[in-house]
Amino acid sequence: MKLITGGICAVEGVIAAGSCKDEYGVAIIVNENSTASAVFTNNKIQAAHITICKESLKNNQLSAIVANSGNANCCTGTEGLDNAREMAEIVSKNLKIESNDIAVASTGVIGRRLPMDQIITLIDKASTKLENSPKASKDAAEAIMTTDTFPKELAVESELKNGQKFVIGGIAKGSGMIAPNMGTLLGFLTTDIQASPLELEEALKKAVEKTFNMVVIDGDVSTNDTIIIMANGKSGRIDENFQEALEYLCSQLARMLARDGEGATKLMEVKITSSKSIEEARKAAKAVVQSYLVKSALFGGDPNWGRIAAAVGYSGAEINGKTMTIQLEGSHNKVKIIENGHVKAFDGSPELETAEEIMKESEIKIEIDLSLGEYEAVAYGCDLTYDYVKINAEYTT
Amino acid sequence: MKLITGGICAVEGVIAAGSCKDEYGVAIIVNENSTASAVFTNNKIQAAHITICKESLKNNQLSAIVANSGNANCCTGTEGLDNAREMAEIVSKNLKIESNDIAVASTGVIGRRLPMDQIITLIDKASTKLENSPKASKDAAEAIMTTDTFPKELAVESELKNGQKFVIGGIAKGSGMIAPNMGTLLGFLTTDIQASPLELEEALKKAVEKTFNMVVIDGDVSTNDTIIIMANGKSGRIDENFQEALEYLCSQLARMLARDGEGATKLMEVKITSSKSIEEARKAAKAVVQSYLVKSALFGGDPNWGRIAAAVGYSGAEINGKTMTIQLEGSHNKVKIIENGHVKAFDGSPELETAEEIMKESEIKIEIDLSLGEYEAVAYGCDLTYDYVKINAEYTT
Repeated sequence: MKLITGGICAVEGVIAAGSCKDEYGVAIIVNENSTASAVFTNNKIQAAHITICKESLKNNQLSAIVANSGNANCCTGTEGLDNAREMAEIVSKNLKIESNDIAVASTGVIGRRLPMDQIITLIDKASTKLENSPKASKDAAEAIMTTDTFPKELAVESELKNGQKFVIGGIAKGSGMIAPNMGTLLGFLTTDIQASPLELEEALKKAVEKTFNMVVIDGDVSTNDTIIIMANGKSGRIDENFQEALEYLCSQLARMLARDGEGATKLMEVKITSSKSIEEARKAAKAVVQSYLVKSALFGGDPNWGRIAAAVGYSGAEINGKTMTIQLEGSHNKVKIIENGHVKAFDGSPELETAEEIMKESEIKIEIDLSLGEYEAVAYGCDLTYDYVKINAEYTT
Repeated sequence: MKLITGGICAVEGVIAAGSCKDEYGVAIIVNENSTASAVFTNNKIQAAHITICKESLKNNQLSAIVANSGNANCCTGTEGLDNAREMAEIVSKNLKIESNDIAVASTGVIGRRLPMDQIITLIDKASTKLENSPKASKDAAEAIMTTDTFPKELAVESELKNGQKFVIGGIAKGSGMIAPNMGTLLGFLTTDIQASPLELEEALKKAVEKTFNMVVIDGDVSTNDTIIIMANGKSGRIDENFQEALEYLCSQLARMLARDGEGATKLMEVKITSSKSIEEARKAAKAVVQSYLVKSALFGGDPNWGRIAAAVGYSGAEINGKTMTIQLEGSHNKVKIIENGHVKAFDGSPELETAEEIMKESEIKIEIDLSLGEYEAVAYGCDLTYDYVKINAEYTT
């Protein structure tokens, strides 16, 4: 398995484009006659595009995705549904693809009507620019950004067990409103694998659970979260090597999302080991990355590790204070602040000094060994900063 | 029922004192031969004092409480337990009260050893100052503050059904690390009611569930949360009027805690009505007050109401987007932003203008009518500000 360039366009046959104007952007991704699967937000308030996507995905087939940024088209009633449908219809007309084979996605402010004139202009513009190139993938990744500070794209190449090569590409956008139930607002994946709808769905769900669902920026679950995969079947049959590559790609995109959380200056990766169950491991990992207090301490480079212990304590996971070990790891050193329940990082100890140094770094790993079982989970998060507050205090006004 | 002055000392027979030096404070409250009950954090990591309190409360009797601020005495092993026990023993010696009748409480930084020299000096000092006076109650309220910006105390006088007067007084400290599972780090209540241990426990639990447990500052559940009530029996037998007064007093203290959340500039009161169950009403109310995005919007005076709808949507409560009504209320006007599922506050609407005005106020009520059942709940929260981040990024360093 190796990383390659080209993002979603690293996959043969995929063409893409992105166009932006003012606060709006439109991305189009074409991967004709693909088997497709998607995962959506479990928020009970859902954006209009999710209804439209579910209709298009009934036959598990897609040829294209059209996505806009700048407006979530959520809480917009029947007019919102009509607007989402119109987005698909315009792409259908421009590209001669059945509108039923087009998925739609939106991200941005909730509760505002979609400015259709501007969106249609951008769709038309993007439709004329479609091509298979690294630039096209990057344009698409940029067009779906809202408060993201950099486009997120990646591609991996690997081999099936029979030696046949396959490729997976992905773009994603995240930033705020990213929560335990799905770690991105929008993520679009392309691949050349052959898979039945059920196989593809299982592969995507399994990967999303371990990766995107483990990113926590603020714990708010978006109304718009959507991940779609389109597999065009030009390579061989899906196998475990594909699953491994898919999970790797998704975990790397998840890290990028955490790294680029709104206002974030630091990445935190929290690994729970030796938990009694996978659910408890995930709960505990998420509780730490979501804690306002841990996130603030991370921003300040403050070795207030008691907050980490407290977050594990209220996570709902079974723990035993007498066996727990908490380790901080930076780029070139690591330190156990609690070992088998014994506090090492007391005032004045060398351990506390090392912890202080590590907390000042920009990527921090926190490993919590519960010594209770054999399950583990990783969650990705970021610090809570003045800029997070600034961005979200000023978002619509 | 009326508010009276005197805080915990409004109750006949109660004497109190508080002493502070540097970052440490000690409060002592004496209400001799009281029936007592307490509610503690459900965090699985618990401060040393909770073990000691549970031992003292086995016979449901207390004569005094000693509490320190500046250090949580948590994650401090057997030495921490010894220190907490020593705090009770010193009070016992000073005041000639059985140490088994003394509850202990701590609040502050986790994972640091209690500086016993300084704590003992403060206990000795407070022991000599004990008196029944409004000043003594205020001193005690101040001595338990950490990042609180004002002392929180209150007293109510009311009448039992038989016409007999009774009094309840309370002090509390809160600020950060206040979460759905118990809305304060420390709360101490005194009263002259007569009650059996079981009656008192039921009354306290019921009141705490509706009030302190509905305060959310940051969602982090403290390892130290402790609420204790001491009833000296000088008035008449507990009845429903006592319950009403207790819930009123606790709800007012809860509002103060929310108002004084770390860095907070605004109070938000979220009421869910017509929910299918009390549990769902509480979940939905807490999800809104805990949302990073709603809290940030509140700080910015941003009418980004879609975030309120989104928080209700992911709360886990049953909702129906087609029947939901969301209303904002300020000091002198209110507006429905969604009514029976129809959005009123679209761009350019007078409703959005009114929503903007209300969001700029310092106390905002958000009422969400789910139109599904007959249960309701209120939660208290505050805005997320630069100062919250600042306070928590710098807390230990």
